Amino acid sequence: MKTAIYPGSFDPVTLGHIDVIKRASKLFDHLIIGVLNNRAKTPLFSVEERVKMLEEVTKDIPNVEVKSFAGLTVDFAKECNANAVVRGLRAITDFEYELQIAQLNRVMDTSIDTVFLTTSLEYAYLSSSTVKEVAAYGGDISNFVTPYVADEVHKRLCERQGSQV
Amino acid sequence: MKTAIYPGSFDPVTLGHIDVIKRASKLFDHLIIGVLNNRAKTPLFSVEERVKMLEEVTKDIPNVEVKSFAGLTVDFAKECNANAVVRGLRAITDFEYELQIAQLNRVMDTSIDTVFLTTSLEYAYLSSSTVKEVAAYGGDISNFVTPYVADEVHKRLCERQGSQV
Amino acid sequence: MKTAIYPGSFDPVTLGHIDVIKRASKLFDHLIIGVLNNRAKTPLFSVEERVKMLEEVTKDIPNVEVKSFAGLTVDFAKECNANAVVRGLRAITDFEYELQIAQLNRVMDTSIDTVFLTTSLEYAYLSSSTVKEVAAYGGDISNFVTPYVADEVHKRLCERQGSQV
Amino acid sequence: MKTAIYPGSFDPVTLGHIDVIKRASKLFDHLIIGVLNNRAKTPLFSVEERVKMLEEVTKDIPNVEVKSFAGLTVDFAKECNANAVVRGLRAITDFEYELQIAQLNRVMDTSIDTVFLTTSLEYAYLSSSTVKEVAAYGGDISNFVTPYVADEVHKRLCERQGSQV
Amino acid sequence: MKTAIYPGSFDPVTLGHIDVIKRASKLFDHLIIGVLNNRAKTPLFSVEERVKMLEEVTKDIPNVEVKSFAGLTVDFAKECNANAVVRGLRAITDFEYELQIAQLNRVMDTSIDTVFLTTSLEYAYLSSSTVKEVAAYGGDISNFVTPYVADEVHKRLCERQGSQV
Amino acid sequence: MKTAIYPGSFDPVTLGHIDVIKRASKLFDHLIIGVLNNRAKTPLFSVEERVKMLEEVTKDIPNVEVKSFAGLTVDFAKECNANAVVRGLRAITDFEYELQIAQLNRVMDTSIDTVFLTTSLEYAYLSSSTVKEVAAYGGDISNFVTPYVADEVHKRLCERQGSQV
Repeated sequence: MKTAIYPGSFDPVTLGHIDVIKRASKLFDHLIIGVLNNRAKTPLFSVEERVKMLEEVTKDIPNVEVKSFAGLTVDFAKECNANAVVRGLRAITDFEYELQIAQLNRVMDTSIDTVFLTTSLEYAYLSSSTVKEVAAYGGDISNFVTPYVADEVHKRLCERQGSQV
Repeated sequence: MKTAIYPGSFDPVTLGHIDVIKRASKLFDHLIIGVLNNRAKTPLFSVEERVKMLEEVTKDIPNVEVKSFAGLTVDFAKECNANAVVRGLRAITDFEYELQIAQLNRVMDTSIDTVFLTTSLEYAYLSSSTVKEVAAYGGDISNFVTPYVADEVHKRLCERQGSQV
Repeated sequence: MKTAIYPGSFDPVTLGHIDVIKRASKLFDHLIIGVLNNRAKTPLFSVEERVKMLEEVTKDIPNVEVKSFAGLTVDFAKECNANAVVRGLRAITDFEYELQIAQLNRVMDTSIDTVFLTTSLEYAYLSSSTVKEVAAYGGDISNFVTPYVADEVHKRLCERQGSQV
Repeated sequence: MKTAIYPGSFDPVTLGHIDVIKRASKLFDHLIIGVLNNRAKTPLFSVEERVKMLEEVTKDIPNVEVKSFAGLTVDFAKECNANAVVRGLRAITDFEYELQIAQLNRVMDTSIDTVFLTTSLEYAYLSSSTVKEVAAYGGDISNFVTPYVADEVHKRLCERQGSQV
Repeated sequence: MKTAIYPGSFDPVTLGHIDVIKRASKLFDHLIIGVLNNRAKTPLFSVEERVKMLEEVTKDIPNVEVKSFAGLTVDFAKECNANAVVRGLRAITDFEYELQIAQLNRVMDTSIDTVFLTTSLEYAYLSSSTVKEVAAYGGDISNFVTPYVADEVHKRLCERQGSQV
Repeated sequence: MKTAIYPGSFDPVTLGHIDVIKRASKLFDHLIIGVLNNRAKTPLFSVEERVKMLEEVTKDIPNVEVKSFAGLTVDFAKECNANAVVRGLRAITDFEYELQIAQLNRVMDTSIDTVFLTTSLEYAYLSSSTVKEVAAYGGDISNFVTPYVADEVHKRLCERQGSQV
């Protein structure tokens, strides 16, 4: 049985991420989404909230599981007994950064390999930061995330603006 | 069972190709190497010779099979009942070309996906053309191909030079 | 009144080209498509056939005109009294090549400027060569060109295969 | 009549920006420079000061107007009844970022298109950050900005250093 | 006699830096490593500590000298009577940034030129930030820095964690 | 004494090449220009003519010597007892190709290193092919090559056109 992990921040999960998840779930027997708990950044959603959102949007894909992790990706992969790390590529600058990370990970643990899927054309412009920036300026994010995630983003932004008063 | 194809010209197969084959064979249950019979190019080795060389260098990897094909990659993938096309990425210019091909293939057949592996660092400079060019100028190719392939390249270049006399 | 030229080989014109033409025709008062008669290449369609195809696919856009030209783009632009050269960008490697051509053209004639439009996402993978290659292997090109152009491509390929017998 | 907007931070306006403004003002009947009031960043000059500087350096170009805006570029473009957004490209990394923004903007409002001009060769290395960094270390910025802007930058840096005492 | 400077932050010096230093020391008669005292960043090691580490790891290369500097690289180069600035290139994104800096420096002082060495393949993934991030998560950094530097990094991270209690 | 080689086709030598030669001649004690005799290509000028043109345009730089060579660059470098190979970088696509060649050369001979100089901004768009293409269409090449080289190019193109009659 082949297991892969798909690590990321998912703050919040976009249609681009869901596209990669669906495609990776067809290539591997078991796909574990790893939600990174990065203490250095201040996310819009807590790691528990991001795990919950991912469970919600992937509930119809039986071989997908969602976990949170902190620390190095190679350590998380080992813990999951994964054969591969899945990463989505949107663009060249992505690619170069991802290539360095993949090579670094192979130096640190040669038993784990990175496979890249290219983001579908219609999501090539899309990132979690884009979603947050457009929403913050009152733009429409319904082309970028599922209705459920759009609701969560709007609720969170309202809370934040409320607390500034 | 997950099947992947790894298409290419392999004229001749390099250590970089073998590195991708070994790694892909661990990620998929069955890996079919597809040797492209491209009528538009004049290869150093015939498609039959290239299939034979690949069979030789992969004989110790049980879940690898070698076939030749002509025509479109998506048609070959369908014929093989493959879930995925595997491609090795060496560099940015590669990446952009490969990205376009992957997107084109998805437009032509949405059931087949392309997964990219990055070539190991020590083979990043290496291509079949490099091997042929260095060998043609009398350079040492033992860092680039297996001893068996090096022999075949030298024999072929001698035949060609002989026939010019 | 602002006039722009859109130079290219258009062998044949793709949906990506038509997308650029439509968008450029909204930005300029007059758009002249310049079909390059490049003696160094052997096209699938003669320059007259390519002009005719472009006239057909742009017949509903009133401010578009189609001309053929040979020689330097800056000379053609001057001849047309154009303010600008329009180019579509699909990808990074395109961009770098196009940037060099644009800079060269400005050194040769400072009165002419190049404006770039980015190809719409759904055509980013598409080029005239792709169309010809897919058609030659019997693939479906109806997502790449208009039905009229698809017919012309198939007719031409049949003629060529017939003449080989 | 064709109207374009040229949005940016212009903190401060460089000779590279002025080059793009001059060239865009020849391609469009009306060019509106949009000075972004980005609350997330701490600029060297307030948005009012940046508008004033731009008005000063463009006072001899009759079809150019300067406005400030906050929020999304597509909303500002709509407000201006603009046909196009103009952006200057200096380099590849620019290009990729700009391409994503352009695609995002087209998803959000298909009636607005982005046209790219390439920065003239002699300003390819130049950015507002460069100007500020060189000036902060006592370097000469007279090759980067107009004399008027150089004066404003030096005055502002003196004020800041004075206030630290 | 030809003198070159090799400027950088070196926080801390990696095996990739040492590779560039060794190679540059063979190309120039005298190589001065310039450790940048960048007030805008909070380094892991003070500039004095970084100078000391560099002196330690280069003590066997007779024509190498280590200095610290603040301000513009061109001013430091002039102060050292250097003919050239040496920079290591790891990747494309590096390259574009470095190209802009090199062009900026030539505009500011035409007598100083920048020469680029490409980082050896086995260090292409490696940066000072990588070293610090991997060490912070308890990963093994012995493939990235010399044993002496690894010790210093571990000591510093322990001090920091201790002081948080 | 440090010796470098600067290999290339130089068919013909451009102002961009001369810029690199002048700058490299200041960085090394002895600079040997290596004119590649590439049997696979049909040059506009024979290797002897290209050597003569380079000697003419570099006659005022005392530490520059011009030689022709065939075969591998590393073999030519060894023959010249060179410490370094000099290459000019114009753009990203150049860079990636050059990086692969540099890495290949280091695998073949670790004692020879490649140093890159970036082409001056005003020649970034310029290549020998550009010169030949512009001249062939009757364009002005006086911004691209020295008057002496321009004369040679025009003479050669006249001969060729004459011989076609």
